[in-house]
Amino acid sequence: MRPIITLTTDFGVSSPYVAQVKAEILCRNPDAAIVDVTHTIGTQNILEGAIVLDDVARRFPAGTLHVAVIDPGVGTDRRIVYVEAGSQRYLSPDNGLLTLVARRTAPSRSIVLTERCFWNADVSNTFHGRDIFAPVAGHLSLGVAAEELGPSIHGIVTLPIPEPQITADQVAGNILLSDSFGNLITNIRHEQLQSLGPLDQLNVTCEGRTILGVGRTYGDKSSAELIALVDSQGRLEIAIVGGNAAQAIASPGASVVVQRGTRDS
Amino acid sequence: MRPIITLTTDFGVSSPYVAQVKAEILCRNPDAAIVDVTHTIGTQNILEGAIVLDDVARRFPAGTLHVAVIDPGVGTDRRIVYVEAGSQRYLSPDNGLLTLVARRTAPSRSIVLTERCFWNADVSNTFHGRDIFAPVAGHLSLGVAAEELGPSIHGIVTLPIPEPQITADQVAGNILLSDSFGNLITNIRHEQLQSLGPLDQLNVTCEGRTILGVGRTYGDKSSAELIALVDSQGRLEIAIVGGNAAQAIASPGASVVVQRGTRDS
Amino acid sequence: MRPIITLTTDFGVSSPYVAQVKAEILCRNPDAAIVDVTHTIGTQNILEGAIVLDDVARRFPAGTLHVAVIDPGVGTDRRIVYVEAGSQRYLSPDNGLLTLVARRTAPSRSIVLTERCFWNADVSNTFHGRDIFAPVAGHLSLGVAAEELGPSIHGIVTLPIPEPQITADQVAGNILLSDSFGNLITNIRHEQLQSLGPLDQLNVTCEGRTILGVGRTYGDKSSAELIALVDSQGRLEIAIVGGNAAQAIASPGASVVVQRGTRDS
Repeated sequence: MRPIITLTTDFGVSSPYVAQVKAEILCRNPDAAIVDVTHTIGTQNILEGAIVLDDVARRFPAGTLHVAVIDPGVGTDRRIVYVEAGSQRYLSPDNGLLTLVARRTAPSRSIVLTERCFWNADVSNTFHGRDIFAPVAGHLSLGVAAEELGPSIHGIVTLPIPEPQITADQVAGNILLSDSFGNLITNIRHEQLQSLGPLDQLNVTCEGRTILGVGRTYGDKSSAELIALVDSQGRLEIAIVGGNAAQAIASPGASVVVQRGTRDS
Repeated sequence: MRPIITLTTDFGVSSPYVAQVKAEILCRNPDAAIVDVTHTIGTQNILEGAIVLDDVARRFPAGTLHVAVIDPGVGTDRRIVYVEAGSQRYLSPDNGLLTLVARRTAPSRSIVLTERCFWNADVSNTFHGRDIFAPVAGHLSLGVAAEELGPSIHGIVTLPIPEPQITADQVAGNILLSDSFGNLITNIRHEQLQSLGPLDQLNVTCEGRTILGVGRTYGDKSSAELIALVDSQGRLEIAIVGGNAAQAIASPGASVVVQRGTRDS
Repeated sequence: MRPIITLTTDFGVSSPYVAQVKAEILCRNPDAAIVDVTHTIGTQNILEGAIVLDDVARRFPAGTLHVAVIDPGVGTDRRIVYVEAGSQRYLSPDNGLLTLVARRTAPSRSIVLTERCFWNADVSNTFHGRDIFAPVAGHLSLGVAAEELGPSIHGIVTLPIPEPQITADQVAGNILLSDSFGNLITNIRHEQLQSLGPLDQLNVTCEGRTILGVGRTYGDKSSAELIALVDSQGRLEIAIVGGNAAQAIASPGASVVVQRGTRDS
């Protein structure tokens, strides 16, 4: 089986920096199958990167290596880590990018990269994606053992990403980010909604607007209507049918409250 | 030979949803060669998707599987179909996306997907690309027979995409869409122009402007000049040399009339 | 080892024209590994393409074939050339795209494409990327000898890209382009700076603003501060920490002067 390496960065769409990373991987292992996750994480937006990695990485075949480079501290003394969690493997700056991955499944191994023999001979100050991450990924895909990369560590840096507050009457969470359609993704999960009652009898309130009922599909309401539904990641999502909720309704960070109610109330 | 699977969606540039689709394919078949056709079809723009699929799919090696997900009806009771037409294979919502593919070459087989054993165990309401299309594509690329996916059907949904009106004196058609350069693509074909007379003696009228002669290349006229030419798909195209005709001249749907004339008239 | 073919074009993000190029390559060689360098070179911006090719191509495994299609002269009598330089191979319109590649390492072989048996049977006037470049790339990746493609030539077209003017006291260069972060890339190289003195004692002046010291990383200054540093390509770069220097400071072509100074002067 071809080794699979994924890339998640904030380099921008169609950035030639991405191709330089791929070149360094392919110089070590021309048979690597490289898959772009996304290169449009907001510049230096570690939270957005953490959410995307958690959504996407665990769906890949076991043993896939996920290279994540959202790295505002490049060139400083921040560490670069290799982490195994669940069935997946990760290379990331140790800046919180793996917060949600590690919250979902505690890492079984974390290593800090120190062995320069696996890096490019010349390491620039501003492009460790090309000069450290890519060469190490290439070596790992060829079977280099992780313990050769550097010493084990016991913890990685995590971000204080909020969890919803759950009471008998409500779940209070937040907008985490907006997707490419302008749909608003919250930190409230399907099973937390279900604990309140039947989904079609819940009210969702955000920025002074209340949506009656959590629906199943965009087709449940008419064009331009505001809708709440459980998205494909199992999270509560707020959207405008055929429209852009991020522009019209709320921004990341905004409060979202779900309460038991009825469509008739 | 590696099985080739192409992806055509409206998920947006660099969307992580695309990577989730690829992950599900690679979990079934790590050797699949996945090629992005485009992910920037206008949101829910089935017509644009139909045109792109017709232009691109038939150029791939015989047996390529084209997965198309422009799917405003996701989660409703719209069908998902597997279609063989010409030498190519398609997975698409049954919403008209295959209109032009099927108009070019009548499908030799159409099957509606019903057998859930080839789908993800959990099927979300909003992301069938990941939960149905991708797993089925993976299974097909491994050699699963199409008839195992569900029952055959006799017709698929088609859109009423207009054909040009042709008389002895003129061809009257429409702008179908604008490409990424802002060039305006019409539904008038090379052979229809040729039936009127020599291309350099035809007049093209759109939104009150008349272009004298259908040219061969952008180099035929000077920068900022309006030009009509036969594009690389064999269709009449209206462009501004070094400029953006979609912003300056006309929008999709606008009428385009070609008449016999002379450069001197 | 799988043959690697890279693509550098101005077709635009997620353009289906790119997929048509890939289809024609895969029809000849389904095992080719195709890597996108970028498709967002500014429309017909040959200089930008030349810079990106020089930065990226030489990092790929020896023998990689780089297909570059920034081609305002498509359909005119401009030539298409196959060039070997360093360990890499190139297909390009003969319009200056290979200027910097050839300036770095003189080509060891240049051939003009004339043998139509390696092209598509029908060659459009506007899309040679699909009808000539891609089929030839496919054939080359299968082992067709370069001399079969056409006759050798002795020189290729080059652009007058300026070199910095170096005196005992200063290096005077220009902004070449801005990257996807809005960082301003100059034509002044690391070794030219070093010849003036210690980097932290150099002053960089551009559009009336003077930056004291050439730094090592973005972390050297605070958010929103203007910074000069040596970028990952070994070139002097002007940036705004967390901001967009291309919008705030200067455009390509602007003059940049580096002089010996001190942080205290």
